[in-house]
Amino acid sequence: MLNTGRLLASLFFGVLFMKKIAIYGASGYTGLELTKILLTHPEVDLTMVTSRRFAGLPVTEVFPALGGLTSLKYQNATPQEVASVCDIVFLALPHGVSMDIAPVFFLSGKKVIDLSADYRLRDVQEYESWYVAHKSSNLLSDAVYGLPELYRQEIKKARLVANPGCYPTSIILGLAPALKNNFLEISSIIADSASGVSGAGREPQIGSLFCEVDGGFKAYKIGKHRHTPEIEQELSALAGQKLNITFTPHLLPVKRGILSTIYATLKKDLSLEQFYEAYCSFYEGEKFVRVCPIGEYPNISSVCGSNYCDIGVTIDRRTKRAIIISAIDNLVKGAAGQAVQNMNIMCGFHEDTGLRSVPLYP
Amino acid sequence: MLNTGRLLASLFFGVLFMKKIAIYGASGYTGLELTKILLTHPEVDLTMVTSRRFAGLPVTEVFPALGGLTSLKYQNATPQEVASVCDIVFLALPHGVSMDIAPVFFLSGKKVIDLSADYRLRDVQEYESWYVAHKSSNLLSDAVYGLPELYRQEIKKARLVANPGCYPTSIILGLAPALKNNFLEISSIIADSASGVSGAGREPQIGSLFCEVDGGFKAYKIGKHRHTPEIEQELSALAGQKLNITFTPHLLPVKRGILSTIYATLKKDLSLEQFYEAYCSFYEGEKFVRVCPIGEYPNISSVCGSNYCDIGVTIDRRTKRAIIISAIDNLVKGAAGQAVQNMNIMCGFHEDTGLRSVPLYP
Amino acid sequence: MLNTGRLLASLFFGVLFMKKIAIYGASGYTGLELTKILLTHPEVDLTMVTSRRFAGLPVTEVFPALGGLTSLKYQNATPQEVASVCDIVFLALPHGVSMDIAPVFFLSGKKVIDLSADYRLRDVQEYESWYVAHKSSNLLSDAVYGLPELYRQEIKKARLVANPGCYPTSIILGLAPALKNNFLEISSIIADSASGVSGAGREPQIGSLFCEVDGGFKAYKIGKHRHTPEIEQELSALAGQKLNITFTPHLLPVKRGILSTIYATLKKDLSLEQFYEAYCSFYEGEKFVRVCPIGEYPNISSVCGSNYCDIGVTIDRRTKRAIIISAIDNLVKGAAGQAVQNMNIMCGFHEDTGLRSVPLYP
Amino acid sequence: MLNTGRLLASLFFGVLFMKKIAIYGASGYTGLELTKILLTHPEVDLTMVTSRRFAGLPVTEVFPALGGLTSLKYQNATPQEVASVCDIVFLALPHGVSMDIAPVFFLSGKKVIDLSADYRLRDVQEYESWYVAHKSSNLLSDAVYGLPELYRQEIKKARLVANPGCYPTSIILGLAPALKNNFLEISSIIADSASGVSGAGREPQIGSLFCEVDGGFKAYKIGKHRHTPEIEQELSALAGQKLNITFTPHLLPVKRGILSTIYATLKKDLSLEQFYEAYCSFYEGEKFVRVCPIGEYPNISSVCGSNYCDIGVTIDRRTKRAIIISAIDNLVKGAAGQAVQNMNIMCGFHEDTGLRSVPLYP
Repeated sequence: MLNTGRLLASLFFGVLFMKKIAIYGASGYTGLELTKILLTHPEVDLTMVTSRRFAGLPVTEVFPALGGLTSLKYQNATPQEVASVCDIVFLALPHGVSMDIAPVFFLSGKKVIDLSADYRLRDVQEYESWYVAHKSSNLLSDAVYGLPELYRQEIKKARLVANPGCYPTSIILGLAPALKNNFLEISSIIADSASGVSGAGREPQIGSLFCEVDGGFKAYKIGKHRHTPEIEQELSALAGQKLNITFTPHLLPVKRGILSTIYATLKKDLSLEQFYEAYCSFYEGEKFVRVCPIGEYPNISSVCGSNYCDIGVTIDRRTKRAIIISAIDNLVKGAAGQAVQNMNIMCGFHEDTGLRSVPLYP
Repeated sequence: MLNTGRLLASLFFGVLFMKKIAIYGASGYTGLELTKILLTHPEVDLTMVTSRRFAGLPVTEVFPALGGLTSLKYQNATPQEVASVCDIVFLALPHGVSMDIAPVFFLSGKKVIDLSADYRLRDVQEYESWYVAHKSSNLLSDAVYGLPELYRQEIKKARLVANPGCYPTSIILGLAPALKNNFLEISSIIADSASGVSGAGREPQIGSLFCEVDGGFKAYKIGKHRHTPEIEQELSALAGQKLNITFTPHLLPVKRGILSTIYATLKKDLSLEQFYEAYCSFYEGEKFVRVCPIGEYPNISSVCGSNYCDIGVTIDRRTKRAIIISAIDNLVKGAAGQAVQNMNIMCGFHEDTGLRSVPLYP
Repeated sequence: MLNTGRLLASLFFGVLFMKKIAIYGASGYTGLELTKILLTHPEVDLTMVTSRRFAGLPVTEVFPALGGLTSLKYQNATPQEVASVCDIVFLALPHGVSMDIAPVFFLSGKKVIDLSADYRLRDVQEYESWYVAHKSSNLLSDAVYGLPELYRQEIKKARLVANPGCYPTSIILGLAPALKNNFLEISSIIADSASGVSGAGREPQIGSLFCEVDGGFKAYKIGKHRHTPEIEQELSALAGQKLNITFTPHLLPVKRGILSTIYATLKKDLSLEQFYEAYCSFYEGEKFVRVCPIGEYPNISSVCGSNYCDIGVTIDRRTKRAIIISAIDNLVKGAAGQAVQNMNIMCGFHEDTGLRSVPLYP
Repeated sequence: MLNTGRLLASLFFGVLFMKKIAIYGASGYTGLELTKILLTHPEVDLTMVTSRRFAGLPVTEVFPALGGLTSLKYQNATPQEVASVCDIVFLALPHGVSMDIAPVFFLSGKKVIDLSADYRLRDVQEYESWYVAHKSSNLLSDAVYGLPELYRQEIKKARLVANPGCYPTSIILGLAPALKNNFLEISSIIADSASGVSGAGREPQIGSLFCEVDGGFKAYKIGKHRHTPEIEQELSALAGQKLNITFTPHLLPVKRGILSTIYATLKKDLSLEQFYEAYCSFYEGEKFVRVCPIGEYPNISSVCGSNYCDIGVTIDRRTKRAIIISAIDNLVKGAAGQAVQNMNIMCGFHEDTGLRSVPLYP
């Protein structure tokens, strides 16, 4: 199971050959999660982490949880300065900012994994109608949508990966087998999702305060969440025709986790076993997708802290609807973990290197 | 605003004329909530609370939160004994147990408010296919479904009220205006609901442990929750034809609250304003239903501890679906509060007597 | 028990004679709690609420939980403008700001209940060494420390009440009987307290974010929390000599509640019964202090949403220490509830008017 | 840093030489945590997990979080059966049960790591006065108290390790440097601790229900918690004389984590720097103890999911008290992680093998 030759090589030449990594925008929750994963990743060397807010401070002072694991300090560095010390860069920046910075890295030959939305939508008009004017749309054709379960071959050769959004990851993985198998009425899809608060980032805002969130549950941005076009782009590609969905995000009083409960009308009669088998077969061999046995459904606490996406399926006979439920940790499979999974693919590492942490439960 | 005559009467003759109340099965969360409301209700006198598990113990020893409010002790009393000391009884018992006990009270002329499912389904076959064999189905024709916003006139005259389930309350109130106005494709209704843990009661079980619930979120009993026939019975009555829905309950890591996000396809083009107005008009004058302004949606933390049902509506133009969101406190409007509201109606009290507590938020 | 004459008067002349109330700084958590209590208080009329941040917005838009309860809007009003429409003002402002504003109200003859720290310390030097330069220290001699259980007679006549801090309320009430009875070695007192997050207010800050607080527990401001001199001032008064304590606040992952676990060495042998009786006797007749039976101890969830202070006591024979535990809701008995209790005393209302809400548990 | 020879050996002969491990009582939270750590531990092979309650069920059915990680099923096996398939056994059983079972393993030459209290107290009378009659006290002299930071040399040679309690681990590590340096008045020690709910185990009981715990905070078993003699035994050994402490445990509304805030009077004047240096020096080279920089204090969320013990110290000049705060994850350093650390020492593995997981924060 272990590759001895490679292991030996890495023993003797490891430090020399290790990929040098930088994280641009490393002090938010996604940046922190990337930092944690990359610090313990055996094949790479995290050389720089940037943060304007915390520039000059040791990572371990801002995040005592990392005490003893690194002596890195946050830098307020230009993209050029960062590019000079890394082979691969992760951009953990807000949309609109990534597209200012990604070109510097891309043009200097670095591999770029962008965790913002800036390179996810292939149609620049679609992007601009949901976000802002695009400033480096010329790179869009180079960008690969970084969902390994769908685009593994493209990611291998990519120099710019657009890491998927958290909600899209959970919904696209939840629907891919059913759409690929042409099981669903495509106009009938409803995705009812709920996310933990870390999805809102670490910027102080009233809506993310403990007292506003704890004990509460609400929907938000109904019918207008910016992940909608991203979800529809990928579902349309899977279905082979343009489709629209209803997508309702909710805010959960938990730190991590997204659960998507997805409804769609079946095109034809189908046994639960057939439906279930289609899922098992589609995800066979995938390290990070676990299809729950029939009768069991995911819980976000069973994926918390891990790169897994758990999927459970059933059929509501009385209404001829398929119900598909998928769960991820929004910071891991929904962001940093998937980004590292993409890096592993781009670099030829084992796809789960650095990503073998077991869910924390309880 | 105040009724002086009545007030004076109650000053001088109050204790004589006060209704005597008992709670059968008072030591679960619903029984506790009833106890709290009834102890502070100015028109009634809580004379007996029963509990097998805690028989002999003062209420305030089992629930120190009530310290100083009552000297009642839990009794292990027969229905006959309880009937001899009360005018009105609340049954906070599991389904299948209520129907053993309700007839004793009913036949001795007491008013009965049953919080179990035993008298909610008018069709005894439907009941028996979801629950167990019915042992007092002869009372079903006397039972009134205790949702005041729909059945106020019937409740006034009722001697046996079947207090609605928590999920049904939130979903029926959420859909009533739209169905009454014939706005919806009735085969398209999906209710995606999430409940706090108190809905599972106070019996110790692994699934309700803090460590199993906190940080988690999951769906359960998908397609087979026993509230389904109750919801469908009332929605069918509103629609004027038999309908089926997809109903998916989820478990939220909060103590109290149910949020239902309801999806249905619109029959015809309708502006959001028209849709919204139909809700405002339907609930005009209702003390416990608050329709959120357009663009705002309910949060369970804004109804926590109160008898309110908050409802927000919108239309997803891209998919022609109405999205209706309703929030209640499952222990109050979803159980004990609504039961007291029913009692108030049955007794001719102001409908909100004893139920004016403001939501606890934050 | 009811005063019929007064009741009748209030029926006929009520609106005329109702006290007019304003809250200066009403949009924080303390201001919101005051708003909720005063809106349902039968003897007063809340006429104005101010907020710079939310000026112009209806209270119910900022806090949908209050929907249907008021049509008030937040005002950005000067103290003079506010003084012109109220008989009594509550100042729910940060320390240092209150002392700019309180004199305007005081000098125009209004009753002032200040919830900041500005008038709590009788010694201006002490205030200035922990806070900032005092700008209206001439009012200090008029200020009464608003802990009704200790200063009820003074509060009756007061025109400026300094409402106690949340931690001090829990610690002073916890120690008062033992110190008054001269039971404790006064150099041995340690107060280990833990507070819910609402104590930090509603200003957005990283440390109050859900993701920073949930699942966490930590001490903060060890040995330097500004409530220390306030606690020591009152404990010294009770002991009849100057004393210092060790006070360690902790941050709890809950919205509301303070639990103080207090340790002190006993001066002499004392049975637990004697110790306990001293507490019962000290608090006899108090509506808002509940002494737990021997062997039981408070839980913040049993006071949540109420104005109660629950106190439990024991003696650790092996080390000759008394252990006293007290619990309050920091927003109610620790702030807004106690402020209204003070208002009730100042106005000659029943002390618990508007304050009879039962703890929310569960 | 890597030991190439050993690594090669383990590549070629690994499976042959891997230690075989069993967990007796594997379906509680501690057993689950052991399972998770041992399944990913590169030097051992987990061959059997027992559970009476879940006998016959796959581990992954009981704990879906472990999906894909193991095909083990829970066995209802006798100690003899278990002994026949393992070299080392972990006993994750209640006190009183371990002492029935440990001798079987011990006498058949297996290494035993017992996570109950049965072999922690060297004085059998002390054990029996706090627990029950001891049934294998003859093994007490073979047992080593498994706190590696104090007993590493003894653990190396041990065949029976008594893994420390969770509270004792946090308090003993917190006080060891100060006591060893003779800094403290030994009669003055107070340990005020708070634990997450997983410390109460996975047995269903009312007190561990979400609705009873969430939003609450309380002390329990004041002055009579069974960890007291264990703490005093080790603190006395460190101090070189018998001592008693006051120990008050509290229940925190979190899943994992213990924070102990420890108070003790200083024997003599000591600068904070001197005090702090004593801690740094005592724990120099320790992989799992992190001393916080002066002015910083631990948070349980910064150790959650890891084997770290974080310690922060300060001195309250006004009262001449040292305040020491320590934080652990009760399931890891307080139980399963420390047990594996002990196994690593007993087997000559790197002490942190299998224990390098980074805290989960946020």
